Order: sequence, then structure tokens, then C-alpha cells
Amino acid sequence: MKNYKIINGVILSFRDDALVTEKKTLYIREGKISFSPFTDSEQYETVDAGHMLVMPGLINMHTHAYMTMMRNYADDVPFQEWLFNRVMPVEDNLPVEAAYWTSMLGFLEMITTGTTCFVDMHMYHRQSALAAKEAGIRAYIGRGLVGEDLFGDGYSRYKQALEEMEEFRSDTMDFILSPHAIYTCSEKLLGQTAEAAREKGMLKQIHLSESVTEVEDCLKNHGKTPVAYLYDMGFLDEKTILAHCVQMRENDMELIRESGASVVTNVASNAKLGNGIAPLCQMKDLGINVCIGTDGAASNNTLNMFREMGLLSLMHKAYARDCLAIPSDYIVKAAVLHASRALKNPAIGNIEEGSAADLVFVDLNAPSLFPNNNIVSSLCYSANGSEVDSVMINGTFVMRKHELLTIDRERVYYEIGKIVNNHL
Amino acid sequence: MKNYKIINGVILSFRDDALVTEKKTLYIREGKISFSPFTDSEQYETVDAGHMLVMPGLINMHTHAYMTMMRNYADDVPFQEWLFNRVMPVEDNLPVEAAYWTSMLGFLEMITTGTTCFVDMHMYHRQSALAAKEAGIRAYIGRGLVGEDLFGDGYSRYKQALEEMEEFRSDTMDFILSPHAIYTCSEKLLGQTAEAAREKGMLKQIHLSESVTEVEDCLKNHGKTPVAYLYDMGFLDEKTILAHCVQMRENDMELIRESGASVVTNVASNAKLGNGIAPLCQMKDLGINVCIGTDGAASNNTLNMFREMGLLSLMHKAYARDCLAIPSDYIVKAAVLHASRALKNPAIGNIEEGSAADLVFVDLNAPSLFPNNNIVSSLCYSANGSEVDSVMINGTFVMRKHELLTIDRERVYYEIGKIVNNHL
Repeated sequence: MKNYKIINGVILSFRDDALVTEKKTLYIREGKISFSPFTDSEQYETVDAGHMLVMPGLINMHTHAYMTMMRNYADDVPFQEWLFNRVMPVEDNLPVEAAYWTSMLGFLEMITTGTTCFVDMHMYHRQSALAAKEAGIRAYIGRGLVGEDLFGDGYSRYKQALEEMEEFRSDTMDFILSPHAIYTCSEKLLGQTAEAAREKGMLKQIHLSESVTEVEDCLKNHGKTPVAYLYDMGFLDEKTILAHCVQMRENDMELIRESGASVVTNVASNAKLGNGIAPLCQMKDLGINVCIGTDGAASNNTLNMFREMGLLSLMHKAYARDCLAIPSDYIVKAAVLHASRALKNPAIGNIEEGSAADLVFVDLNAPSLFPNNNIVSSLCYSANGSEVDSVMINGTFVMRKHELLTIDRERVYYEIGKIVNNHL
Repeated sequence: MKNYKIINGVILSFRDDALVTEKKTLYIREGKISFSPFTDSEQYETVDAGHMLVMPGLINMHTHAYMTMMRNYADDVPFQEWLFNRVMPVEDNLPVEAAYWTSMLGFLEMITTGTTCFVDMHMYHRQSALAAKEAGIRAYIGRGLVGEDLFGDGYSRYKQALEEMEEFRSDTMDFILSPHAIYTCSEKLLGQTAEAAREKGMLKQIHLSESVTEVEDCLKNHGKTPVAYLYDMGFLDEKTILAHCVQMRENDMELIRESGASVVTNVASNAKLGNGIAPLCQMKDLGINVCIGTDGAASNNTLNMFREMGLLSLMHKAYARDCLAIPSDYIVKAAVLHASRALKNPAIGNIEEGSAADLVFVDLNAPSLFPNNNIVSSLCYSANGSEVDSVMINGTFVMRKHELLTIDRERVYYEIGKIVNNHL
């Protein structure tokens, strides 16, 4: 593994929950960040990060990489129509192998826009994990689980999830139990999943309170909100990641806070599918650990975390009619630091001695960022993702001066072209 | 002037108010678009637009280019504080010449993200016009007017406006009378401006109903809303462009519609300054001609129209909790076709026989747009502006394969660096 000395960059890090930007030299030794210079016996390459911001990689906390080929495929339709009549029929007919290429297409977009780690819920055994491994992107991968009984009708998916973990778990890949939603999983299966997660010390994620329909059906069927339903069955804990949480009712947010679960907000997807706006200001005030996700490209329609960050801040400022609602430093922390907390992985999400070297080099001379009057602010309000010049994951460059080093774009496009022609 | 034959591109145009995308060859003859092939005696260069969308240039209908150096300079502060305590003191101390470079910085960002025409309200005599002329960008420029009497205390600014028009009016530059706002201009000055506009056949623009404070003060001082106040004095007509219109009360929107005035919505700026969300869905339903602007970089903080387009659609979908609110084709029309209508300039805003060749070449192979399942939709939901490969204005390339041809970026940055050091 190559070592790097990164000079002349402005380094963005978090210190006691505050953002700090400072000129500093980084030493990347065996894939980890250090501030101790190399000794004479150590080999390294010097990287000039002049006019670059070097920041911890963005962490996309909720996506479905395999959906990337469905970008702009089913736009301007309601959520139920989108999911059941447009997306699911495609999924049902997609050959498993296609998921490798469509995931790779997603990683291509993620890497070019500064995402170094993502949390995925997928449908196709092994393909997303295989593609992530080859792309060199850090991944938390979960096979979507559905059904009545984890050890009955849900067993084949659960078995695949465990097999994937067995085969692919590595320094840059971990696995997450992923019951799809309360309306596709029985109470029994949810309980079994929670138990399995605790036994195996695994994280778990679920789509929750995404639409009004989901909440109203739950109130009708269980006499309580989706959050209360999960809380009462003991599903929620500190290793639980709740995607969406748009339609919060009663004391839902208090229950989430009390449980220690993290929330992933997906503002573009929720807006685009007509599901509304999550109450982010209240979640922030309550101290809930809120992270940011793009959701899949079929409902966003980009995996660009910078777009998501700007949108999130502006959307809530507009909605609250308050220019101070959700300031830019909160957004940057949510996109990085809160994510590492939700993942219980302090080795990522910061630039400090011993951190994994997941680094994004942002060109401060890009027309969108110049002049650099306030760098943190510009990441939220000015950046569009194209300012990302280079990306390092776990100490290895996966993009350098805009050149992708682990993904063959032409080949990916060729394969995606064939799949789109045959299946969309 | 060079002629061009543009082959292999997908051409986006408007036909009877509908968007059409089709493979077609364009002939750019003397700066104008034609579909008639060149004769043997005509000289031309062939441009291969393979895997490109060729679309009419975006029109940024409300901005202040001279503010670009203040990008991220005064973030997360309320509107009144932002305007009176942060922005105005800088303006008061800025040397006139600085406005040339800071405008040029704005044009640099506009061009790289596909804007070929903008409507400006500025503060500094001749500098924005001079810079626009040299950048080769199409411009509608207005000197901000304030005061009690257009021919008294307001006269020096008015005189400058007319002098600028005299000096710079050309094929690609026109002028627009620009009283700043109802709270900085007296009723007399507003009336005189309206009369002057009619006499001279000029367009006029004004900031209107941007903040709650403006509306409440107007109700107190004049007993009517800002819109009603302008309507009653005969200020509103088809050649009037109203920037913002966020705080619509009573029958404001009906009055605007009746007058035939156009509205420019500035969703990012309104959100960021805590002014709220304009009632775009109602304006659309009423048939008001709505256009899109970025406002200045100090309140946005980018001049990227693609960012604005995506934000506009998603913001209103979220706010209305309706996935069909403000669909993508409406957004693209607002950014181009509605703008040409507001400007009473049918020669721009479309690709048809005889149109001015203001063209943007969008790379359909950009990672954010691939696969191209729905091109129009992707302009709104997926594009971030970095997909713009080349830009032609009035038949001349100002950017080609990402290389700026009329602006020396290094020089602009050097000059801006000096100004920022001395004045921010």
C-alpha cells in the first residue's frame, strides 16, 4: 500500500463537534491519516493540494445503488404508483447480473461527486457488494428483507444477507440488516430481525414513516404510529438507522431520541415523490442524530450529496421562513460526522490521527466557490459536486484530477445501454 | 462572422408551448439559426454534437452580477441585517472599477453553467456593461434607481442609465429601467420611471413583495399591498418584470395577471434570506408568466441556473406535498421560453428558423445524466450545471469543451483576490 504526504491543502475536520479549517500537512500511512512526518526509511508520494480543500469523504446514508439505471425513468408520478407500478415491475424482470452494472453506475456518480461511503439497501444477491469492492468505495450493504417469518418465507433473502457478509466483509465493507418497511414485513419478521441484529452485533436499517399512507395504514392496523409500533416491539436502538421519517406524528420524535436511533433524511426524494418535508428543525433541536441520504436515483434523480446538502438547508430555511434554520455547519456535520456516529464507526467521518484516509479534494478555484469567503458555507450553498477533483478511499486514490481509477466508464455505459434497451 | 454546421446533436426546442427533442442538423449562419443547408459558396465549420443535447441558452432573469465577489460573505443572517448592515457598507466603499471584475466573475460562472443571457440590476456606472460586452454574454442591464424624484435626487443615476444605453446598446445588449424597490423609491419617482419607460419603449424591473417587512410597511404607509400600490399608480404593464413576489396577499396575483407583467422567482435567495416561498403553483395556474432568476451570489450563493431549476421544482413539490406540482417541462420553459416572452424578444429563447444562436451543449454522457431515460426531466432533476460542455452566444462560441474563450479566468481571480483583500 502506497503512502502519501499531502501538502498545501486546507484541511477540514471536526473538533469537539465544531468545524475547523486550517493549513496542515497530512501523512497517509498504510491507509490511515497521521500528522507525524515520515521517517527516512518510509517511502511515499507527495501530493500537492494547493488551492484544494481536503475534507472527510461524504457519507450517503441511504441509497439503492442498483436503481441508478432507472434515473428519470418514472418521474412526476405519486409514490404508490412509482413504487408498485413502475419500479417493482422493472425489478421483477431484471437479471441479477444487471445489478452489478447499475450499482457500478451509481458508484461512478458517487465518487465523482465526493461520496466515499454509502449505506445501501438492495435486491440482488452479491452484485452490489461485488461492484463496490471493485470500485473501491466504502460500503454498508443490506439485502432488503420482506415477508412473514425471517426463517420461513423471508429466509432465502436473510440467508443471502449472511452469505454476502461472510464473503465480502472487509476493511471497507460491512453489512446491515435491512427489513424493507413495516408494510412489507410482518411484526414477527421485524422482531426476529431485531433479535438477529443484537445477537450478531449488526446495524439495522428500515424505511419508516415515508408517506401519509404508511402512517394512516399503521394507525388503522396497529392503533399507533409506525415509530411507536417499532418502539413498542423493541426494534429501535442505537444501532438502528431510520430512513425518511417524514410523517412524524404524536411523540414520534421523542421516541426516536429516547431510543438513540439515527434518522436519515432524503429531502429530494421525499419532495419529488410528493411525500413532503421531514421536520428537521425539531429533530435537530431534540438532538436526534440526523444524517443525509440521496435515496435511489429513480426518486431523486442524482446521487450527488452536494446537491442534497444545499437543498436540505434551503428547503428548511424556506419552510421555516427562517434564515437561521439549519445553518451550513450543521449540514456538513450531518453529511459526515453524524453518519460515522450512526454507523458506530469512529474511524471514518473525520480527519484525525488514525482515521481511515477517506478524503475528498475540493477545488477551491472552481467558479462556483471563488472567492473563498467562507469555505464551510460554500460547501452547502455554492458547491454543485463538480468541484471534486480527487477522491481517496481507505488510503487509495479512486479518482485523481477527475480521472476515475477503479471504474471503466465506457464499459459501464456500454453495459447499461444494453440493460436499458432490454429492460426499461 | 463564422458559420457553423452542428451535426449529430439532440435538439431541444419549443413548439406550440410544448418541448420537443429530436435529432436535427443546425446551420448557424451570421449568428442566426437556420435549418437550410449551406450552399457551395458558403464557408462553415462542422461541429460534432454527438452525445450532446443542444438547447436554447438559459436566461437568468434576475441577478446582480457585481455582487459575485460577495459570495458566502454574509451567510445565515436575516434579510434586513444582510442588506443594510452587511451588503450596503461594502457597496458604499467599493471603487467603481472593481465592479468590472466582480461582474466578470459572475459571467464566468454563468457561462460555465449554461446561462447565455441575464437581466441585471447594478450599482456601478458602465462596469457591468463593459464586462458583459467583453465576455460576449447577452445582457439586459439596469442601473438601480432610488430617491424622491427621477429628475432631482435620482437624476445622476437615471442619467447614467441613459448614457450606458447610448454607449452600449447592441445586438446582444439592451437596457431596462430599474427602480430598486417601493421602499427605496418615492411614489413620484416610480411614476416618472413608468412614464419614461413608456415614452422610450423600454422594459422596466423592480424588486417587489420580497419580505414580510416590505408588505407590512406598505400596508401601513399606503393602506394597500405593494402590488396594489404599483397597480393603482399604473406602473404595471406587459413590459414590467417583477422580481421575487414572495409575499402575495389579497388579490395580488390577479392584479399581476391582469396587468400582463412577468414575475421572476428567486427560490434560493428567498429561502436563504428567510423570506419564504413564492406561491408558484397558484401563479402557474393563473397563467402568470413566471421566469427564473438566481438573484446575486451574495444571497444564493451561486449563479447556476440548473441548481435553481432543480431547487424550484423540488421546493414546490415538497411544499405542496404533490409530486405533480411544477413538473419538469414547466421548469425548462420558465428558464428559457417565459424569459424571452418577458423580455419581448422572440429572437431568443428557442431554436427555430431565424433565432439568435444562443446555444448550450449539454453532455448527455455526464455521470449525472446517464442513462438518458428522459432528457427534459434530467435537466430539472439530475443536472448540476457541470454537464455544460460548450456555449454559443449570438453565433459565437464563448466556451468550447469547457474552455472559456472570452474570459481570462486567472486574470479575473487575480483581480478579485486583490479586491476581496481590500474591501471585504
